Amino acid sequence: MLSEAVPFCSKYWYHIVIFFVCFCYFYGDIHRQIKRRISPIFTKVFKYPDGIRTDQNEALDEVTDIIDNDEEEFMESALPKDLKHVPYQYVKPNEKELLRRANKFFEITNARRTIRYFDEENVPKEVIRYIIKAAGTAPSGAHTEPWSFVAVSNKTMKSRIREIVEREEEINYKKRMGKKWTSDLRPLRTNWIKEYLTTAPYLILVFKQVYGILPNGKRKVHYYNETSVSIACGILLTAIEYTGLVTLTSTPLNCGPAIRTLLGRPSNEKLLLLLPVGYPAKDATVPDLQRKSLSEILTEIE
Amino acid sequence: MLSEAVPFCSKYWYHIVIFFVCFCYFYGDIHRQIKRRISPIFTKVFKYPDGIRTDQNEALDEVTDIIDNDEEEFMESALPKDLKHVPYQYVKPNEKELLRRANKFFEITNARRTIRYFDEENVPKEVIRYIIKAAGTAPSGAHTEPWSFVAVSNKTMKSRIREIVEREEEINYKKRMGKKWTSDLRPLRTNWIKEYLTTAPYLILVFKQVYGILPNGKRKVHYYNETSVSIACGILLTAIEYTGLVTLTSTPLNCGPAIRTLLGRPSNEKLLLLLPVGYPAKDATVPDLQRKSLSEILTEIE
Repeated sequence: MLSEAVPFCSKYWYHIVIFFVCFCYFYGDIHRQIKRRISPIFTKVFKYPDGIRTDQNEALDEVTDIIDNDEEEFMESALPKDLKHVPYQYVKPNEKELLRRANKFFEITNARRTIRYFDEENVPKEVIRYIIKAAGTAPSGAHTEPWSFVAVSNKTMKSRIREIVEREEEINYKKRMGKKWTSDLRPLRTNWIKEYLTTAPYLILVFKQVYGILPNGKRKVHYYNETSVSIACGILLTAIEYTGLVTLTSTPLNCGPAIRTLLGRPSNEKLLLLLPVGYPAKDATVPDLQRKSLSEILTEIE
Repeated sequence: MLSEAVPFCSKYWYHIVIFFVCFCYFYGDIHRQIKRRISPIFTKVFKYPDGIRTDQNEALDEVTDIIDNDEEEFMESALPKDLKHVPYQYVKPNEKELLRRANKFFEITNARRTIRYFDEENVPKEVIRYIIKAAGTAPSGAHTEPWSFVAVSNKTMKSRIREIVEREEEINYKKRMGKKWTSDLRPLRTNWIKEYLTTAPYLILVFKQVYGILPNGKRKVHYYNETSVSIACGILLTAIEYTGLVTLTSTPLNCGPAIRTLLGRPSNEKLLLLLPVGYPAKDATVPDLQRKSLSEILTEIE
């Protein structure tokens, strides 16, 4: 059997190799290994003008991180093993009070609008600190708290951030995002000039930590870090609104690496959102948008 | 030149093809095309016991969806072209008031805890509606509002959801997630038995719409839909806490397709979170966790 198979293999080994590689690629571990270990080397060797590819790899790495969590480098525990459990302190409201509060909270959040025009007036530092503290109460996968906030009020630093964002956004609008993106955004009257980045007294930059670093230098898995940090941002936006300030929820495409370098953030952090925070300009306008009705977003199964 | 090249090509065409395919794979469009069009066919042909791969493909598809947004099928506009802009109505609080509110909001959110033990007592339907309405005020990429909420109070339906979640979670704990995940969760005293899914009066299931469908049947791009829906969930969790109810933020791994089928949700929706909502059980306990301090999560650049 073997002697018969040898000439076949020597003649058609190319076919066998190709079949094997394809099979492993689609259904085996080699798929993930190539993505994680070989692809970044190529990315460094070839400079690629279209930076979107990098974002795509990052997103894939994140998915891989959730799955590859039993690698040895990630074997440190996230929580103390002897964690105590204590009674939950709770004061139960009556039904009338529940309804009053639920209604009140809806009215607060319903008044929130995305603002693109800011006043230069300063905001007390303590207010920004409370807002960030509120965001830090968000739940996270296995209580990993995978967020970092940078609050920038320094004028030079704000100008530098603006330079980075405007440079990248001009490329986004003109090349990367295609006609569809720019035509979708036109009714909102946005372009790549981002004046608010220097007028708003504060820029809050929200980073997700794709993994954590323990005191002993080992890595800690951050499960569902993007979802966790986005939930924290939902609390952050509500804190800003509740306090009486305004913001603009922005996701500056492709600015992450340059801003991370500028701010000296570690390599496990990726920029998720950039929020200018302050008072609205006296003549600030907002697009006359309608929100979906409750029946469009809620299905009740009773 | 051509006549010299021909024997070279005929002899070494395998090498050329392999080089070309590898090059295109790493740096060309073929990479995305293979992922989107060929890979799903293979996935259907081979039944794969490890469902995690599906999640990985879904995440990749999502990234691809953001990038491929100038395909013809997505060419419908998200917002009306003649959108009016109106003055923003704003009442400016003084600095003392700003600080009081920021502090108050932090105290509200800081009291929130993830609860795993629920009371069976019912919650008024109107309260749940206000909470969902609040979540629906979240910002979203190009105002696409890519969320769907399903509020389940029906006992049979809650039991069926519990069956699905417990079946998948048992596999997650025993096989999929590896030792690391289960050892990370052990201090929280969780396992695959999810009693709260039938005791809590309401289950709120949060779906992200990876694309929208316009009245004419065409698809609408949903930019950054995962981030947008997670932000809405941050507001939802805060609404529940503000109202005086409790919840558990859960991301049931791999239950999405079965729950989507059970609830008859369309194929553009993916399950993001499952939140049991109600009153805590009288003897509910919580792990004695500490949150990171402000200095661990905030960097100020003044």
